[in-house]
Amino acid sequence: MIVSTDPDLLFPPEAGVRSLARDLYAGIKALPIVSPHGHTDPRWYALNEPFADPAQLLIVPDHYIVRMLFSQGIALEDLGVAPLDGSPYERDGRAIWRRFAENYFLFRGTPTRLWLDHVFSHLFGIEEPLDAASADRHYDTIAALLARDDYRPRALFGRFNIEVIATTEGALDDLGWHRMIRDSGWPGRVVTTYRPDAVVDPDFEGFSANLDRFGEITGCDTGNWAGYLQAHRQRRSFFKGLGATSSDHGHPTAETANLSEAAAEELFSRIRRGSDDERERRLFRAQMLTEMARMSLDDGLVMQIHPGSWRNHSAAAFHRFGRDKGFDIPTRTDYVTALKPLLDSVGLERGLTVIVFTLDESSYARELAPLAGVYPALKLGPAWWFHDSPEGMRRFREMTTETAGFYNTVGFNDDTRAFPSIPARHDVARRVDCAFLARLVAEHRLGMDEAHEVARDLAYGLAKKAYKL
Amino acid sequence: MIVSTDPDLLFPPEAGVRSLARDLYAGIKALPIVSPHGHTDPRWYALNEPFADPAQLLIVPDHYIVRMLFSQGIALEDLGVAPLDGSPYERDGRAIWRRFAENYFLFRGTPTRLWLDHVFSHLFGIEEPLDAASADRHYDTIAALLARDDYRPRALFGRFNIEVIATTEGALDDLGWHRMIRDSGWPGRVVTTYRPDAVVDPDFEGFSANLDRFGEITGCDTGNWAGYLQAHRQRRSFFKGLGATSSDHGHPTAETANLSEAAAEELFSRIRRGSDDERERRLFRAQMLTEMARMSLDDGLVMQIHPGSWRNHSAAAFHRFGRDKGFDIPTRTDYVTALKPLLDSVGLERGLTVIVFTLDESSYARELAPLAGVYPALKLGPAWWFHDSPEGMRRFREMTTETAGFYNTVGFNDDTRAFPSIPARHDVARRVDCAFLARLVAEHRLGMDEAHEVARDLAYGLAKKAYKL
Amino acid sequence: MIVSTDPDLLFPPEAGVRSLARDLYAGIKALPIVSPHGHTDPRWYALNEPFADPAQLLIVPDHYIVRMLFSQGIALEDLGVAPLDGSPYERDGRAIWRRFAENYFLFRGTPTRLWLDHVFSHLFGIEEPLDAASADRHYDTIAALLARDDYRPRALFGRFNIEVIATTEGALDDLGWHRMIRDSGWPGRVVTTYRPDAVVDPDFEGFSANLDRFGEITGCDTGNWAGYLQAHRQRRSFFKGLGATSSDHGHPTAETANLSEAAAEELFSRIRRGSDDERERRLFRAQMLTEMARMSLDDGLVMQIHPGSWRNHSAAAFHRFGRDKGFDIPTRTDYVTALKPLLDSVGLERGLTVIVFTLDESSYARELAPLAGVYPALKLGPAWWFHDSPEGMRRFREMTTETAGFYNTVGFNDDTRAFPSIPARHDVARRVDCAFLARLVAEHRLGMDEAHEVARDLAYGLAKKAYKL
Repeated sequence: MIVSTDPDLLFPPEAGVRSLARDLYAGIKALPIVSPHGHTDPRWYALNEPFADPAQLLIVPDHYIVRMLFSQGIALEDLGVAPLDGSPYERDGRAIWRRFAENYFLFRGTPTRLWLDHVFSHLFGIEEPLDAASADRHYDTIAALLARDDYRPRALFGRFNIEVIATTEGALDDLGWHRMIRDSGWPGRVVTTYRPDAVVDPDFEGFSANLDRFGEITGCDTGNWAGYLQAHRQRRSFFKGLGATSSDHGHPTAETANLSEAAAEELFSRIRRGSDDERERRLFRAQMLTEMARMSLDDGLVMQIHPGSWRNHSAAAFHRFGRDKGFDIPTRTDYVTALKPLLDSVGLERGLTVIVFTLDESSYARELAPLAGVYPALKLGPAWWFHDSPEGMRRFREMTTETAGFYNTVGFNDDTRAFPSIPARHDVARRVDCAFLARLVAEHRLGMDEAHEVARDLAYGLAKKAYKL
Repeated sequence: MIVSTDPDLLFPPEAGVRSLARDLYAGIKALPIVSPHGHTDPRWYALNEPFADPAQLLIVPDHYIVRMLFSQGIALEDLGVAPLDGSPYERDGRAIWRRFAENYFLFRGTPTRLWLDHVFSHLFGIEEPLDAASADRHYDTIAALLARDDYRPRALFGRFNIEVIATTEGALDDLGWHRMIRDSGWPGRVVTTYRPDAVVDPDFEGFSANLDRFGEITGCDTGNWAGYLQAHRQRRSFFKGLGATSSDHGHPTAETANLSEAAAEELFSRIRRGSDDERERRLFRAQMLTEMARMSLDDGLVMQIHPGSWRNHSAAAFHRFGRDKGFDIPTRTDYVTALKPLLDSVGLERGLTVIVFTLDESSYARELAPLAGVYPALKLGPAWWFHDSPEGMRRFREMTTETAGFYNTVGFNDDTRAFPSIPARHDVARRVDCAFLARLVAEHRLGMDEAHEVARDLAYGLAKKAYKL
Repeated sequence: MIVSTDPDLLFPPEAGVRSLARDLYAGIKALPIVSPHGHTDPRWYALNEPFADPAQLLIVPDHYIVRMLFSQGIALEDLGVAPLDGSPYERDGRAIWRRFAENYFLFRGTPTRLWLDHVFSHLFGIEEPLDAASADRHYDTIAALLARDDYRPRALFGRFNIEVIATTEGALDDLGWHRMIRDSGWPGRVVTTYRPDAVVDPDFEGFSANLDRFGEITGCDTGNWAGYLQAHRQRRSFFKGLGATSSDHGHPTAETANLSEAAAEELFSRIRRGSDDERERRLFRAQMLTEMARMSLDDGLVMQIHPGSWRNHSAAAFHRFGRDKGFDIPTRTDYVTALKPLLDSVGLERGLTVIVFTLDESSYARELAPLAGVYPALKLGPAWWFHDSPEGMRRFREMTTETAGFYNTVGFNDDTRAFPSIPARHDVARRVDCAFLARLVAEHRLGMDEAHEVARDLAYGLAKKAYKL
């Protein structure tokens, strides 16, 4: 038996509270999944090909998994991660799977363990816990199922009860897969999200060439400020045409700026000429957040800010393996000073939604809940990344609710590229929220009828509303 | 039924711990209220006139309430908040009340919800939960009671079992209401608190004129450092004459300084001439905290420092509505470096009490508990403002007790201008402390006899002792 | 009865979880103590003389105790702490003990209370709680037992079931006591730890003379960089010869540097000439952490970094009483930026172990767990100092496990000079970990078989493995 298949998973142990949590969960567990922010590959839904072998699907691309194994001395090459210089690496899915299985005990107490056990049991019908001895049986079972038609992406999309899922594409993307999905007649709703980092962040690889390309595909003159902004407006409109209801911005900090038109124009021209002054590059990123917020006011796209991750912290790992291999580390992040220019510009607008995320939990009660609890334009994104976990989500509720309430938050984001784990992630979030609400009810801070309503809003209603889905 | 009227409100759900919490609470629930720090209007006790309509009493002046409603898109004007430019705003109490009632669900999970439900049920005898349907009935019930003599301020003071309450007045206040109370023969004990921000903070509106006025009313020459300090001494003495046992200081940071006499004198003369050097203005505020601490050593006033709030964060809201409309946002606050000059000067004095508050919970276990756990002059104020809430108070105990103990804390402050909610606020604090103590007893970390003693100290004894009331 | 002698001490109150915690604890409570980091005096084990009177053993040297009493207005002199200027101080152990006993209530809710009650009951067989009335009886009981042979250091070492204990010695120490222990034939395993702060930190008292002496005892020329590094290598080897498996570094911050050979050499020569440039002194400390890590790679010593304490915060107390009198205060500590140079140099090495501690809990989930969860060389030390407490250890697990897992942590450190309290401290840690694991099991996040395994690893296995003991 896999322990986390227990129907009381994550519910508080005290019998009375547990019973309340069960009731609340029973009312929402079957609600459709609304996934307003994530990183699954639209190609999957477009082509609907079978997924690759178990290791390529579940291990190799999951940075939560490879980082943990690497931290305990297992080479990334042995986990199927390809070095950029063409050095050899493990290509045998079964060998990767065995290495993972032998070390599955390392994930005790982590959300990865909960998500994977959920996938094993609920998606693949496996009852036996994963370890070295059972590794091959798991592998064979999963591989066999993945080859079946009813385990192809669109079939899973239906089985997962996904009402709508958002993917994330760069500003230069032609959204070909999204067009293919739209034209296919398949009724699954897959929308894109406008992610302009590559043409907004002067530190992004190939920034200058990116701006040239940005001009080509929009027909705007990205050599000047007005044309550059116009290119954004055009691309945002194009993304909206393929379902986008939001933009997303992954800056190193939450810094915003509100320069005069002339100063912004002048700054852009220096940046466009390749300024290597770090303050100017930072200021440009800061100014662009405010510009994007202003465009949101015009075109209605919901704006998401994901700040505070030091990307690719290990220089050596970055040079050997490239981006997104588990070396992104959170940093202390200020919001009160950083967001003020943007908030002074558009923070009081009731027609605007800016959703802020954080990797710095010390900002929940001190900064973010107080800000979201007064600025109409500001909402709090759910516990993010390393904090997308039972303890992390509990702390999020405990530290934001008393000041911002539930209704300045926006429901759950799975934020994942791991498609098979999406139901598991939503299920964990729903359970943790029900456990939190059950405690409020048990402590007579909330009525059970209200708790049912809130549970439904947190699981479904708030995400639809905040993201206009 | 209003759910939070349950006698077990806020007690832990497990039967054994709950029973311990009940016992502890039974021993303290009837203790008189000592309210050593707050912002009620002394005029109320002086004139003893009936309170205004329900909305003017409970909604319009409560920034917790208006900020939440504003964050969800309701205009401040529609909540009865008057724009400074004379634009129209809602003056109909019933209309304001209805808007509030329709949106009362927004407060689920917040302390405001607990306080108001307590007021509705315990003060106004209402059994029906507030929502759009019941709004008018609530309004009528409350309005009718407020017109009665036994709901006038002095009657409520008695009914609330208030032993003593402190208000807060600026250094330039003539304390006329306090004199009227004293001379009235009414036995209620209302004391003032010396709050000199307007004559200490060069950024305060009208600072220079304030200093002129400070000189006039004291007969001291506030054109020089010695006269300026003398004016403080004189006003402190005057405030003591009207019951003050403490001073209060609301600085942007906890920064203190300990300049030589000559340097302080020179700094004052630059400030007095209107220096606009931000470093000098900051340094002056910092120096004045140490000066105030030294005066406390002489005259025995307990010193309170409330740092770390960015006041009026939204420029637009400040210009339209003025101060204190819910736009004060906490900032990251350092204490270890900031307080060192003051502590080096007077921190080892056993005859001095400096009570420090924070809006930055990350400083509880890291900085404040270790500091208060060794410096005799330093005590920890209770969980403040956004943290004056069940989860906030629980975190305060969990993060300070192990290093500072209970006896370097000072009991509860309601810190409120919302007079009707004072019993609710003290009740929540007492319940949360009893819940915390019950857990310690249930985990065999504390004896039940000791827990009873501590509960009584936290609810009553420590505030009296720390504030010399 | 002393309440904390209850067998369920620190276990969660809910019956089901408590039962799980009991089972887990039953499986590990008798495991030997592995104490890989601490500050007991090797002289005790070498000479095996009886301990001094109760106050000199339990009160005077314990900065947790004297700081709390001092914070409540009791003079350090009255607690037996000797002023440096030869002023009188209390030398009567019984008088000190009485003062302590009268104020024992101040420790309610603190770990000191748990540790001491454990010592009173389990080591000295006392059943009566300590207070003013029982003070003399406690004193007499303890004094009588301390005079017995079976309460001498080596006897207690055996009774405490200590498998191995590490002490900490400065780089200039001759390790005479350790040699005496080794040569004595006594089978108790006491190892040293290399602590080079006095020859690494330019701000250390007597730094320049220390370097001279460092040269003398190693025969290396500490006038130049190569010779200075060679002296370290030689001393490390000498310490290894007396059992050391680790080094320890107590820097003000976690700052590291990775200078070129030439720049490091040039920096050393400036430092050696007595540079008083604070940036250079800081940079030197930073560079030396990386140098020490490189040496660890060669000689296999595990490296411990204990940053973020502002030592001797009160200038007045430091001048009157000297170091380590309870005036060390934690400060906000950055790790992501600070450790990057060291991690870029050696962070991917699987053969290296760098154990990082923190006094800033806000870094647990934000920085330290993400770093340790990917860098093979990095492990997390247990909750340290003010956080070595039930709530502190619980927060450590709750905030690190989900990202770093259990296996990037290193078990418990008692970090104490209070020898009699060592079993108490390990017992508290084991109980808190069992309580945490029991909750995971009760919430179906972990199987009971796994929890037993993890409990054993946290109590015993991880410390042995991480410290190579």
